Amino acid sequence: MSEHVYKHLELTGSSKTSTDDAIRRAIERASQTIRNIKWFCVQDVRGHVEDGQIAHWQVTIKVGFTLEE
Amino acid sequence: MSEHVYKHLELTGSSKTSTDDAIRRAIERASQTIRNIKWFCVQDVRGHVEDGQIAHWQVTIKVGFTLEE
Amino acid sequence: MSEHVYKHLELTGSSKTSTDDAIRRAIERASQTIRNIKWFCVQDVRGHVEDGQIAHWQVTIKVGFTLEE
Amino acid sequence: MSEHVYKHLELTGSSKTSTDDAIRRAIERASQTIRNIKWFCVQDVRGHVEDGQIAHWQVTIKVGFTLEE
Amino acid sequence: MSEHVYKHLELTGSSKTSTDDAIRRAIERASQTIRNIKWFCVQDVRGHVEDGQIAHWQVTIKVGFTLEE
Amino acid sequence: MSEHVYKHLELTGSSKTSTDDAIRRAIERASQTIRNIKWFCVQDVRGHVEDGQIAHWQVTIKVGFTLEE
Amino acid sequence: MSEHVYKHLELTGSSKTSTDDAIRRAIERASQTIRNIKWFCVQDVRGHVEDGQIAHWQVTIKVGFTLEE
Amino acid sequence: MSEHVYKHLELTGSSKTSTDDAIRRAIERASQTIRNIKWFCVQDVRGHVEDGQIAHWQVTIKVGFTLEE
Amino acid sequence: MSEHVYKHLELTGSSKTSTDDAIRRAIERASQTIRNIKWFCVQDVRGHVEDGQIAHWQVTIKVGFTLEE
Amino acid sequence: MSEHVYKHLELTGSSKTSTDDAIRRAIERASQTIRNIKWFCVQDVRGHVEDGQIAHWQVTIKVGFTLEE
Amino acid sequence: MSEHVYKHLELTGSSKTSTDDAIRRAIERASQTIRNIKWFCVQDVRGHVEDGQIAHWQVTIKVGFTLEE
Amino acid sequence: MSEHVYKHLELTGSSKTSTDDAIRRAIERASQTIRNIKWFCVQDVRGHVEDGQIAHWQVTIKVGFTLEE
Repeated sequence: MSEHVYKHLELTGSSKTSTDDAIRRAIERASQTIRNIKWFCVQDVRGHVEDGQIAHWQVTIKVGFTLEE
Repeated sequence: MSEHVYKHLELTGSSKTSTDDAIRRAIERASQTIRNIKWFCVQDVRGHVEDGQIAHWQVTIKVGFTLEE
Repeated sequence: MSEHVYKHLELTGSSKTSTDDAIRRAIERASQTIRNIKWFCVQDVRGHVEDGQIAHWQVTIKVGFTLEE
Repeated sequence: MSEHVYKHLELTGSSKTSTDDAIRRAIERASQTIRNIKWFCVQDVRGHVEDGQIAHWQVTIKVGFTLEE
Repeated sequence: MSEHVYKHLELTGSSKTSTDDAIRRAIERASQTIRNIKWFCVQDVRGHVEDGQIAHWQVTIKVGFTLEE
Repeated sequence: MSEHVYKHLELTGSSKTSTDDAIRRAIERASQTIRNIKWFCVQDVRGHVEDGQIAHWQVTIKVGFTLEE
Repeated sequence: MSEHVYKHLELTGSSKTSTDDAIRRAIERASQTIRNIKWFCVQDVRGHVEDGQIAHWQVTIKVGFTLEE
Repeated sequence: MSEHVYKHLELTGSSKTSTDDAIRRAIERASQTIRNIKWFCVQDVRGHVEDGQIAHWQVTIKVGFTLEE
Repeated sequence: MSEHVYKHLELTGSSKTSTDDAIRRAIERASQTIRNIKWFCVQDVRGHVEDGQIAHWQVTIKVGFTLEE
Repeated sequence: MSEHVYKHLELTGSSKTSTDDAIRRAIERASQTIRNIKWFCVQDVRGHVEDGQIAHWQVTIKVGFTLEE
Repeated sequence: MSEHVYKHLELTGSSKTSTDDAIRRAIERASQTIRNIKWFCVQDVRGHVEDGQIAHWQVTIKVGFTLEE
Repeated sequence: MSEHVYKHLELTGSSKTSTDDAIRRAIERASQTIRNIKWFCVQDVRGHVEDGQIAHWQVTIKVGFTLEE
């Protein structure tokens, strides 16, 4: 494992229900095109408000994945 | 939409149940006196502990709203 | 209350289910050996991904507790 | 001048033409309701893009003004 | 206490004598119009110099207060 | 709009004339290969100096764009 | 002196009188159980307000001490 | 070029017209006494407001220059 | 050179021997697929420990490269 | 006043008695060789501990002064 | 592995020879009393200078280790 | 030692071989004109890449030295 090189991407996922769900959606969408995602970390949590209610939660994450040899 | 000026406020909401609920409470309370809240972003997540259990979750957010013409 | 000195510790809790649960686990584990934990604040939220799914949520917190006289 | 207390507000101005113009608009709008604005500092510069062109520049500033005795 | 929502304000107090005095002045002035200030935290310490001596100490703080039900 | 996932890229644009022009150039160049850029935010403003004059302005931005379904 | 390893602890001291006194109290309390404290640095200055007056100053510091051979 | 040592200075330029002009003025003034300025980066953008208008733009920059052998 | 647009990528290299070697490995691996890398800057230095020894050094860097016309 | 260019210096003052005194000493020493110091801001507060007591307070400040025409 | 709680400590190692060696020394010393150190990350690199030469390199790291059940 | 005032300078050293060597070169060059350098701390590590290889390591440091009485 030691000699891998990892690449990072920054993504924003959104959800109508929760912060954790917004993270899950970003990772699931990214996994459609990137194999080998190993970790994520949260950069920013925000959201849109409409009529005094949270309409969408938006969470920006970094994901790291191995570059295949 | 382009020529609006937005004002920001910083608030802390608290909840006995979760971080997301603390955010919701802050926004609902602010919406009683401020119309046109458009977004929030999370600044800080913390809480009080009593007898080894989380008693209250406290989340500090910024909210942005349009200044009406 | 005014003359207390507080000590801080940094911990990472992990959970298979959610960010809030990872925080709860860190505090409950710390409370086995530290009495008088008063507060926590979140430093970092991250996690491990396996096969395009979040395998573990990991949340780093600081906890503060009173030094007993 | 020495004994004044200043209050700060955070605002976002927007403009179709430039960053400096977005700052000017935020200050002019704020001056309609706040007397005695003394300074501003820039917190964040961003914007919206439509069809590969910058549609609006958005600049978030803090302004400071004296509380009158 | 658990279900309160807190609002934050940023202020700069100034004093001819010390940093602590500048903080005290900002809080006393704010308390003339805001009831229920609960805490402050220091954001920035600076000052003006005239003829090689400190003429005014200026301390910027955030204060938090409960929004009354 | 709510269920989109956004991807971010970091770019540096340069210009002989101004900071705003450096931002415009970065966005126009990125738009040649990326559809659906929605926003940018400024990360860093710097430049090269030759013979006591600013030779190039260099502005680093993040851009966000929607991942198409 | 060159080959020492230092350990750091984070503490919050509180005082009814001043920021400097809150620092002194944290160091004196820590010195009851830790020998060889060599330095401190201030992380955060805050306080509690009651009836428009500062009730307690609270200063968070890091202290560094040598691990004895 | 590889073995040079660079020294940095921090300066604030001011202008009645724009942020970019404030940067230019700082660099031109510094070039009167420092040869070999190679780059600048922006640290802070602020300004003074008088009667609801921006009176001066103030931009703080770092400049880097080679120490001559 | 002045009119180039640069793109940035974030990478983590790892090495059994040193921090500098971890940086070199990340750059050499990235150069297999990206031409025209011009610079790097270090974001984060960390590593894994096994049996009280450093097993791998891990260094996260940003690299910048020119987008070809 | 508007067209001045300011230069900044970073200094650390030390004192056996207090943080404010350490700042005063740094400014008075700097004023022996620099005319026209206009402001300072605090960057860092730390100190040395001997035998469980604060031996010296050390405060790092930036000072700004006008470059004379 | 998923349900572990990790504790973090902050340490400064020093060395007469290099930054990497200062990190190694901090980890080896900490491993004398802490089992199960899993990772480190670098917080700060500094050093002492004597007669124009680096006398000691000092590197501050955080280490993370598992709390045993 | 207690009553000294220290001045700080920011420098960038470069080297073809390593980060540590870039630091050493900056300190040795600075010591040609500044007596009494006491410490350094690292601000930034970066470098230039040519043909997929690191051509120069560049490390920015702050140095502190005593102002002589």
